[in-house]
Amino acid sequence: MFDPIEKLKAYVAHASVSADPEFAPHMVGAREFVGGLLGEIGFAVEYVPTALHAIVVAKRPARGPAAATAPHIIIYGHYDVQPADPLELWDSPPFEAEIRDGRIYGRGTADNKGPLMAHIAAVARLLEKEPDLPLNLTFVIEGEEEVGSVNFRTFLKEHRDKLAGADFIFMSDTGIPSPEQMVITVGLRGLASFEIELSNAAMDLHSGAHGGAILNPIQALAELCATLHTPDGRVNIPGFYDEVCEVEDWERDELRALNLNEADYAKFLGVSQFHTPPGYTPFEAIRFLPTLEFNGISGGYQGEGSKTIIPSKARAKVTCRLVANQDPVVIKERIFKALRERAPAGLKMELISQHDATPYRVVPPGRSNTPADQSPALAAGFRAVEAAVKQVWGSRPFYLREGGSVGLIADLKSELGLDAIMLGLFLPQDNLHAPNEGFDLGILQKGIDTIEAALRAMAGR
Amino acid sequence: MFDPIEKLKAYVAHASVSADPEFAPHMVGAREFVGGLLGEIGFAVEYVPTALHAIVVAKRPARGPAAATAPHIIIYGHYDVQPADPLELWDSPPFEAEIRDGRIYGRGTADNKGPLMAHIAAVARLLEKEPDLPLNLTFVIEGEEEVGSVNFRTFLKEHRDKLAGADFIFMSDTGIPSPEQMVITVGLRGLASFEIELSNAAMDLHSGAHGGAILNPIQALAELCATLHTPDGRVNIPGFYDEVCEVEDWERDELRALNLNEADYAKFLGVSQFHTPPGYTPFEAIRFLPTLEFNGISGGYQGEGSKTIIPSKARAKVTCRLVANQDPVVIKERIFKALRERAPAGLKMELISQHDATPYRVVPPGRSNTPADQSPALAAGFRAVEAAVKQVWGSRPFYLREGGSVGLIADLKSELGLDAIMLGLFLPQDNLHAPNEGFDLGILQKGIDTIEAALRAMAGR
Repeated sequence: MFDPIEKLKAYVAHASVSADPEFAPHMVGAREFVGGLLGEIGFAVEYVPTALHAIVVAKRPARGPAAATAPHIIIYGHYDVQPADPLELWDSPPFEAEIRDGRIYGRGTADNKGPLMAHIAAVARLLEKEPDLPLNLTFVIEGEEEVGSVNFRTFLKEHRDKLAGADFIFMSDTGIPSPEQMVITVGLRGLASFEIELSNAAMDLHSGAHGGAILNPIQALAELCATLHTPDGRVNIPGFYDEVCEVEDWERDELRALNLNEADYAKFLGVSQFHTPPGYTPFEAIRFLPTLEFNGISGGYQGEGSKTIIPSKARAKVTCRLVANQDPVVIKERIFKALRERAPAGLKMELISQHDATPYRVVPPGRSNTPADQSPALAAGFRAVEAAVKQVWGSRPFYLREGGSVGLIADLKSELGLDAIMLGLFLPQDNLHAPNEGFDLGILQKGIDTIEAALRAMAGR
Repeated sequence: MFDPIEKLKAYVAHASVSADPEFAPHMVGAREFVGGLLGEIGFAVEYVPTALHAIVVAKRPARGPAAATAPHIIIYGHYDVQPADPLELWDSPPFEAEIRDGRIYGRGTADNKGPLMAHIAAVARLLEKEPDLPLNLTFVIEGEEEVGSVNFRTFLKEHRDKLAGADFIFMSDTGIPSPEQMVITVGLRGLASFEIELSNAAMDLHSGAHGGAILNPIQALAELCATLHTPDGRVNIPGFYDEVCEVEDWERDELRALNLNEADYAKFLGVSQFHTPPGYTPFEAIRFLPTLEFNGISGGYQGEGSKTIIPSKARAKVTCRLVANQDPVVIKERIFKALRERAPAGLKMELISQHDATPYRVVPPGRSNTPADQSPALAAGFRAVEAAVKQVWGSRPFYLREGGSVGLIADLKSELGLDAIMLGLFLPQDNLHAPNEGFDLGILQKGIDTIEAALRAMAGR
């Protein structure tokens, strides 16, 4: 009998920090551990090298009379984890999983070893009960998610044969607001990052000797940045919203049904009021609208007291979050065009393009905006997961778009045409990327039951 | 015979860096050296302690039949110097004065040991020739000029008796554009410094999870800062220009006569164009107009690459340069009022007041705007210096206001009611505050001749 908690403890003990080369042996350990588990339950396991950390690809073909028409499901996960420091803030060692009050603590317990273990355990149990299950299963477990899945797209391009014939992705690397509210994430925002640098004089100048003769680049940058939003909170770039997909009534209803409280959210953020475009609650704005956000600004003297200079340059770091249908490259072109038109004469402006991520969206079956050409397998997958959640949790899942960005989901869609069914399992209090990361064992068990039931239904049983 | 070059070399050897406590013994050495020089030529020398570095006060009363009605002139200077680092950029050791190509190199040779030595040498020669000179002379030589004259105002308040009866200040701690163009500085801009801090959320937030819900403090700061200037380059604060003194035609004429070249100035600054309010050349704007200048801006992530946060706060450092008649306290009140009115609702704004300096202005006699109550002694002082410059340099000095701020001049005016005749002696290439500081020996000699002739004339001889 597959014991997911004992396996998870052993898995956490492999300190698979992908960002730090010193942890490379633990990366090997973690992927061989998870590959070994899959081998034990009947999968053919392969470690596909990348420029950094190999990807585990494990396949188990459908069996039985219905094998020829069985669906093919890819289960995605990642075996790498965030660095554990600051170590002194942990109540128990990050790589020695410890159970306290119905929760398991350790780096990676929630992101992503615990949720991935729920999928492996569900598959193990199901195959034990039904060795001839008519379902093609492929695990794709990468080791670079915490460093931006840098080689994942290349892997998809070079090894598309390994994933040929797949119907959709099934995975758990997203969250839920509370243990009673299951969420299937049906959208992720994209990203368009860049920097603006404005410079004028060749060096910092004495503000007494020269102040009043030239345009201060901090002033110029402030004036330029101030043109980028309207007073009501929209982004003030021609064409910025052109491709933004309409929000459907069912999406707003879904959010309302979550019963989120604005006052609680304001308190959590520590703000006295929200700032959203007309017609959008904060919960809607962070999911359904694109943004242009200043992540950093710098220029001149920043130490204690004052230094009477006119700085030579000033710089702002910007990221846009994009929603479905927006293309980061096109959006950036429009922004750069506006910036060039609005930049003050005489100053040098440098626009430095940084990384992008395509937004992602999938519409569950039966909604007014479900694409007419949605594949029957994907629709059946959604129905199977919804039924399984109802059965295990007692109520149906919420279908929500989220504000964050996970580039690899868009990569799977653009490279392989595959959509993803993202069943959330971790909680706000699970401390992802922070000390005392933990995972709720009740959710682990219910997650296994849900995934087992869903896979069984996908196999038509 | 007083040899100013040998004395200057010995004076420079005292590494009187006021900012660094390790140099304290050299501060004592420098002030006792300069006090000793003045003692040798007949002055009664006193070292008046301050909270940091004592001030040298050296007095020599008028003699002879006209003593009772003789003017009393204070000669101001400072014995402290800037730190010498980076030492590796000096061509000769900073505290071992070296003569090369008619210039003397070393820290303090121009700022202010050389120019002060010109005054001491002039007085020494004059008194040697005319022991009974009917002129009351008081040297006030401070040791904290390079750290902002922090205790000078307290000294003036507590020891006004020592300077009682003085008619005006005579000094050389300002510059000239070229060895042929002597300048008497007749105005200095003031300063009003403060910081603006805007904050919103209690901590930096994930820009995916929360972007679109709240106002980004960098955006808010940019929008606030962008309201502070008009497109034509004026400061956009109600009442900002209310007290600004009118520029007289003679002042513009004086500047024009200097024959400064805008293209050369732009090239020196490394800018492609100037940005001045309508009706002002860059040379006029830096002298005759107040400014609101951003010295620094910061907020959020400033390292390499990107970090997808909504920062908790953003901050800008601002200094205004003020011109005659503007009161830093009043101007700051008006700016703060405007900032409070314009600040976005819901964000926390902190306005942190920093140091101020009052602007200063004196009008030489015979100009259309010379005050009717200008003292005859001051008027005679200006005429004496002008005549001396004509005699030694062959042409009269230019009377120019400067863009920088020297708070102690305004302090002398406000505490003692004394104006200053500021005879410039250092050149743009003298590298004040920088490696390879130097001073032109030709100017030193002509400066001594000029000061000697001027003092003689002030004494009515």
